[in-house]
Amino acid sequence: MNEGSAPREPKIAVIGGGTGSFTLLSALKDHTSKIAALVNMADDGGSTGVLRDELGALPPGDVRQCLVALSESPKVRDLFNYRFTEGTFNGHAFGNLLLSALEKVSGSFGEAVETASEILNIKGMVIPATLDDVRLRMEWPNDEKLTLHGERVIDEHYFKKDPRTAQLSLVPVAKANPLAIRAINDADIVVIAPGDLYTSLGPLLIIDEINQALQSTSAVVVYVSNLVTKRGQTEGFTVSDHAAEIERFAAAPILDYVLYNEQKPTSVLAEAYREKENAYVVEIDEDTMDKQHYHAVGGNFLGAMANGAEGSEALPVAKRSLIRHDPDAAARAIIDIFEHEYGQRH
Amino acid sequence: MNEGSAPREPKIAVIGGGTGSFTLLSALKDHTSKIAALVNMADDGGSTGVLRDELGALPPGDVRQCLVALSESPKVRDLFNYRFTEGTFNGHAFGNLLLSALEKVSGSFGEAVETASEILNIKGMVIPATLDDVRLRMEWPNDEKLTLHGERVIDEHYFKKDPRTAQLSLVPVAKANPLAIRAINDADIVVIAPGDLYTSLGPLLIIDEINQALQSTSAVVVYVSNLVTKRGQTEGFTVSDHAAEIERFAAAPILDYVLYNEQKPTSVLAEAYREKENAYVVEIDEDTMDKQHYHAVGGNFLGAMANGAEGSEALPVAKRSLIRHDPDAAARAIIDIFEHEYGQRH
Repeated sequence: MNEGSAPREPKIAVIGGGTGSFTLLSALKDHTSKIAALVNMADDGGSTGVLRDELGALPPGDVRQCLVALSESPKVRDLFNYRFTEGTFNGHAFGNLLLSALEKVSGSFGEAVETASEILNIKGMVIPATLDDVRLRMEWPNDEKLTLHGERVIDEHYFKKDPRTAQLSLVPVAKANPLAIRAINDADIVVIAPGDLYTSLGPLLIIDEINQALQSTSAVVVYVSNLVTKRGQTEGFTVSDHAAEIERFAAAPILDYVLYNEQKPTSVLAEAYREKENAYVVEIDEDTMDKQHYHAVGGNFLGAMANGAEGSEALPVAKRSLIRHDPDAAARAIIDIFEHEYGQRH
Repeated sequence: MNEGSAPREPKIAVIGGGTGSFTLLSALKDHTSKIAALVNMADDGGSTGVLRDELGALPPGDVRQCLVALSESPKVRDLFNYRFTEGTFNGHAFGNLLLSALEKVSGSFGEAVETASEILNIKGMVIPATLDDVRLRMEWPNDEKLTLHGERVIDEHYFKKDPRTAQLSLVPVAKANPLAIRAINDADIVVIAPGDLYTSLGPLLIIDEINQALQSTSAVVVYVSNLVTKRGQTEGFTVSDHAAEIERFAAAPILDYVLYNEQKPTSVLAEAYREKENAYVVEIDEDTMDKQHYHAVGGNFLGAMANGAEGSEALPVAKRSLIRHDPDAAARAIIDIFEHEYGQRH
């Protein structure tokens, strides 16, 4: 990039759903306003599940999180995140109710997301991966009895067979939201956010038109690798194992970069994760990664609490999310890739 | 007013709560942006009652209606008015949930109303008459057994004794919202909207600081008289009877004008009201009004459906609100009073 020239704003599409997307979007929006969050639409648990069952609404939960991440209005953001703690509404996140009510009023979840985006004054766009009413299914081809129905069920399952031999599908088959396809085609960088392989990233990547767009786009595709394994699901998975599953879902070698964390969490925290969640820090298998078609790039991506700062030793390990990405470091690494790949074109 | 000079925007405060306020506010906002809606806070029925009981929230229902009336954002307005029709949320107006959630998030109903005003992009201000958690009580001094507790109970009651001998109070005694006092003091015109005497206007007018402000303000105070009587409560009440009850609540002769409707609803509609609701068109007692300290001004204020236009004969009488004010005609009459009273000062 020529010194003195105004740097071009990168166009970034982020694929995911839950906390991983939230974290990256919150930080990436400081680098660009041309940001699109593509959101998994197979969620059926918790508040979201009740709204699907009772109102026939499309799942609002992950969309809500992404909207909040991109919001520039702190007060409305707090409102969206508010969860009722008593009475009829106990457990419902307010933003979920808002999205479902907007869907009822407008007759379209897509319009609901647009109006909510205005209310929240968001940077960029939040795009449901599909506007079809779909449920997730996971089945092992040689074992009919093992078929799992619904994202919540799969999320809470301890797999009895290797999930890498299982097939993930949406029922009925989902058509992609055309806006999602356009965002992938138009992007400079597509980021696959860290997230649960079988219940967050998989349900989105298996949509045919989406994985076709990921193959044909000229965008650089970056996977930000998960930090810890998921109990009963991805135990023992290395960084390259995660990347391989992502490409299996996408049915093609779509990845250009894999960003993995090299920083170690404090031993106390890592031990607590093992004891409480049977969750382990994802193992870095450099030798295997070196043989892959993608660039594997290590970095220090741990959040402050996980790497020993801010008195993390003294904190109870209440949540998996205590070992999490430092949003700014991960975003910076993504922008570095953008500048490396596109800088010389200026 | 001098021809050619830009007319000053009137500062108008509207006192009330339900449909009457909504109707007037919707029309008055076309004439001025300096409009304040002062809202009764004793409601405890329906969706509002559930939110008070379950969440300990202040009553959002009437505030919601006034916010919607002043909103300039059609899509968000529709969202606020949306009422869930199934499942856990059945019967709740979405705007009520939003106000209660905002109250929880901010810890203050006043702030909740402010934030909701931004979300709805309203003209003017909506001001809860009090921010205290109060319930309405109605008692007949000589009959202890007759005491009625709560606005909903009073609203649905057929009074066994003349309500004009009853005492209305808020429990505990309410402090007025300082913003309400300021709005009354600053106004050119204070409008008392048509509404149920004992459950909509009374609970607001009996607040000490409010009725003191109504006595001391230099604003012109206009009561837009109810169109029909309320079954079991105000049967036989004339226009001046309504005005007298309002001044009894306010404990002083506060009215400068009484605007009453002279236009007759179609006979079919009037008959249907009698049959279905025991409700009668309020009788105009000109002779009595002529002896009062206020100006009684008649006009054609009936809405299109009530005065025979738009095929009202063919419509079923499902709702009391079919006989209602023509918002534009009533607002025009209020603006005429403003111009008459203040015009020469320019």
